[in-house]
Amino acid sequence: MPERIRGVWCATLTPLDRAGAPDHARLAAHIARLIAAGVDGVALFGTTGEGQSFSMSERRAGLDAVLAGGVPAARIIAGTGCAALTETVELTRHAVAAGCAGALVLPPFFFKGVSEEGLYASYARLIDAVADTRLRLYLYHIPQVTAVPIAHEVVARLLARYSDVVAGIKDSGGDLQHTRRLLARFASLAIFVGHEPHLPEALAGGGAGTICGIANLYPRLMRRLHDLSLGGDPREELRRIDAFLARLERYPLFAAFKALLADLTADPAWEALRPPLVALDAAQRREWIAAVAETGIVAKRDAA
Amino acid sequence: MPERIRGVWCATLTPLDRAGAPDHARLAAHIARLIAAGVDGVALFGTTGEGQSFSMSERRAGLDAVLAGGVPAARIIAGTGCAALTETVELTRHAVAAGCAGALVLPPFFFKGVSEEGLYASYARLIDAVADTRLRLYLYHIPQVTAVPIAHEVVARLLARYSDVVAGIKDSGGDLQHTRRLLARFASLAIFVGHEPHLPEALAGGGAGTICGIANLYPRLMRRLHDLSLGGDPREELRRIDAFLARLERYPLFAAFKALLADLTADPAWEALRPPLVALDAAQRREWIAAVAETGIVAKRDAA
Repeated sequence: MPERIRGVWCATLTPLDRAGAPDHARLAAHIARLIAAGVDGVALFGTTGEGQSFSMSERRAGLDAVLAGGVPAARIIAGTGCAALTETVELTRHAVAAGCAGALVLPPFFFKGVSEEGLYASYARLIDAVADTRLRLYLYHIPQVTAVPIAHEVVARLLARYSDVVAGIKDSGGDLQHTRRLLARFASLAIFVGHEPHLPEALAGGGAGTICGIANLYPRLMRRLHDLSLGGDPREELRRIDAFLARLERYPLFAAFKALLADLTADPAWEALRPPLVALDAAQRREWIAAVAETGIVAKRDAA
Repeated sequence: MPERIRGVWCATLTPLDRAGAPDHARLAAHIARLIAAGVDGVALFGTTGEGQSFSMSERRAGLDAVLAGGVPAARIIAGTGCAALTETVELTRHAVAAGCAGALVLPPFFFKGVSEEGLYASYARLIDAVADTRLRLYLYHIPQVTAVPIAHEVVARLLARYSDVVAGIKDSGGDLQHTRRLLARFASLAIFVGHEPHLPEALAGGGAGTICGIANLYPRLMRRLHDLSLGGDPREELRRIDAFLARLERYPLFAAFKALLADLTADPAWEALRPPLVALDAAQRREWIAAVAETGIVAKRDAA
């Protein structure tokens, strides 16, 4: 049975080829570089990875290709949540069969105002349908995107019935009070923060770590932030991340990430996104890259 | 090339079998009854039909089965929008190849705050990828569910480039002012309202008709509302629909629709929904059915 994961996990960006499909070779190489730079693993096809913009078959093929490219399954949690329960079941089965460390599952996100009963039923049916003791389920709370928060009562009901399967929560809400409540109530779960500056406090409160986007760009910085939070002084790392995020606010998030990764790796192929997301235009890109340079975050020792 | 559609179209509910999968035989029979009762056609796997809760393969199989069951393709517009563009392309191609009267396409609905450029690119890439002059695209505006409104500038840009393909808009926002602006600006498009009480004014303003949920329950009432709006006095029909909607407000919409259809057809199989939606509990159901009876809407001449 897979252990629960901990540490610094990167919500990996998904590179596209010229036809706009996931570029498997570039993705596997990116993940290998991140692991070499010290991240503990990657979340594949999460929100940062534009996961919902790819079809079920693209997501399945992407996972297969990354594994074939040499990334160990134990270093991957697969984003397998879909709007349709039947697709979530199929992708989750595939991830479990592939030996992934876990499945990161959004609530069904099309309907809004769904009942706690309906949300519970969605996850319970998923677990029942996958019917595999190797499944490690990480609930994915990101209400600013889904508009479907995961109520704590739902987590508690799931945990009461499926304590071996429900392994953790990725809290990407960016609300530290919410993370604190999760940590206080669900000590048996591996709680991850998505908002990087919250990592030190989350770890201090018994959290498992972070699954975050900045690790695509500055994996070594995130590693240091994590390790110094457990024993040392992470204030300098925090200051630089805050400065970075303050500049990032003015740009569309994932387009800015991709433009910066293209710059850091001198590989313009990284700039492409799939609609409905679009790349920064040339002027925005220049301005953004210059703004990042000003923060002093771009040091050789921070990137991969 | 298919004509643009007009009139009373039912956003059909999707019945489930005991295993929770779409019940093809019951669905085809329901549609046949609706057409016999006077609706002009049906929208398959729209929001009322829980379309996003079914996988791409379930939606494709559902359309095939309904056609095999004898429903003419000209009476069907297929809900083919998905979160992932590649899935939308595949479902739309399938609907066009099947001869459907149109494809009803949601904007990509996972990411929020997408740019007009990204929204335009999504629809433009869809049309380019389907690359079939038979495609008739109906844009599906339902921001209270998607949280992704379709900006009028996007409609205008699409219309400028794809005037033969972009055929209409289903405006399910429930905001009459918004519908009026659409009617005023896009006279060449077939504009449908989702909110039934807006049908008379929409028709008076040059609108094409309605694609709505109440037609599942009271197709004859919706037919009369439509026909009397074009020549007669629809006030009695409007009064009854308003009374119905006032009671409906207190219940989860689609669960209430399904419970009532189960009652009207004496077929309890209609009660089931797929998570994240769940059926009314027994007490709610009794209360709701009784509330509808009080409105006096349930007359033999209204249902199918």
